[in-house]
Amino acid sequence: MTRRHQPVCIEQPDWLFDVLDLQRVYITQQQRMALAIKLSAHNVKQGGGPFGACVFDMQDHTLIAAGVNRVEQAGLSVAHAEMIALMQAQRHLQSWTLDAEGLPDCELVTSSEPCVQCFGGIYWSGIKQLVCGAYKSDVMGLGFDEGPRPDDWIDSLLKRGVAVKTGIMRDAAVEVLHRYKDAGGLIYNP
Amino acid sequence: MTRRHQPVCIEQPDWLFDVLDLQRVYITQQQRMALAIKLSAHNVKQGGGPFGACVFDMQDHTLIAAGVNRVEQAGLSVAHAEMIALMQAQRHLQSWTLDAEGLPDCELVTSSEPCVQCFGGIYWSGIKQLVCGAYKSDVMGLGFDEGPRPDDWIDSLLKRGVAVKTGIMRDAAVEVLHRYKDAGGLIYNP
Repeated sequence: MTRRHQPVCIEQPDWLFDVLDLQRVYITQQQRMALAIKLSAHNVKQGGGPFGACVFDMQDHTLIAAGVNRVEQAGLSVAHAEMIALMQAQRHLQSWTLDAEGLPDCELVTSSEPCVQCFGGIYWSGIKQLVCGAYKSDVMGLGFDEGPRPDDWIDSLLKRGVAVKTGIMRDAAVEVLHRYKDAGGLIYNP
Repeated sequence: MTRRHQPVCIEQPDWLFDVLDLQRVYITQQQRMALAIKLSAHNVKQGGGPFGACVFDMQDHTLIAAGVNRVEQAGLSVAHAEMIALMQAQRHLQSWTLDAEGLPDCELVTSSEPCVQCFGGIYWSGIKQLVCGAYKSDVMGLGFDEGPRPDDWIDSLLKRGVAVKTGIMRDAAVEVLHRYKDAGGLIYNP
């Protein structure tokens, strides 16, 4: 180890801002999930993992931050879509917790249920609502490992004030997972 | 959200490289844990959280990467000592998993047992051994929350090929936690 150690930076992909419609208001849950799934699909096309996530303002339904899986590109096992979206949201709102006074209530919408790491990241993030597309069983069925996420993960989040919905637009989310696998995409940690 | 969204970067503190002895070989487990605890103590002095972590090469016992809690300074709930040390190690070894062929076996030494997020991060990191100082009960006793880490976390890591030791130099690690609390340090997520 040397003094050359740099800060660790996680870049957003160039194409992300071509896909996002920054002016749009995402009124319905379906619209918000459709965006997370769209990001997952674009990420597959660009050689990334089949996962997308967005943080929305629960009052005005605008997009606060977005992330896609960048594990291979960033060279970091932390670079899951949810973790990046949460980091971007905290930086944007300038707070290490999205639960801070004066901030809008935040919702994380993710194309698949979180793995054990993202569950932990969500737990500390300060979001008020989590909305998931594909189930853990869908992700595991494709050979991905979600890790030892506690069985009572939804209750744990509820107790912390985070409402959880899952299986929203499940078929569309799962279709992207299949497309990734069929294209020979890397299955992390099988 | 605007195009202005920057990469998320997590800086190392300036003082870190004054504290680390980069030429040293850390032969014994006590020497390695002493460094993690030393980092936790320095971080408290500098206004950070009372946690330090290091990644070591298990063959030659050199230091690969280090991290201290930077939650407040980085403005990110992900910026726990363990997560930063693992990110730095993966960047240094240029691999999203420390378990890749050709890399040295890696050990993470952390001044306190991991929270639920760091447990998840460790699970995906590719390390081969985890060594912890203070117990979860010590951290919780001070009012910190470790989150819903699974009760069988050690077994989960073992099954993944990660050996776990805990309570190593516990008293010295706990002493830093107390010093932080006595100095009025912020207790995250109480």
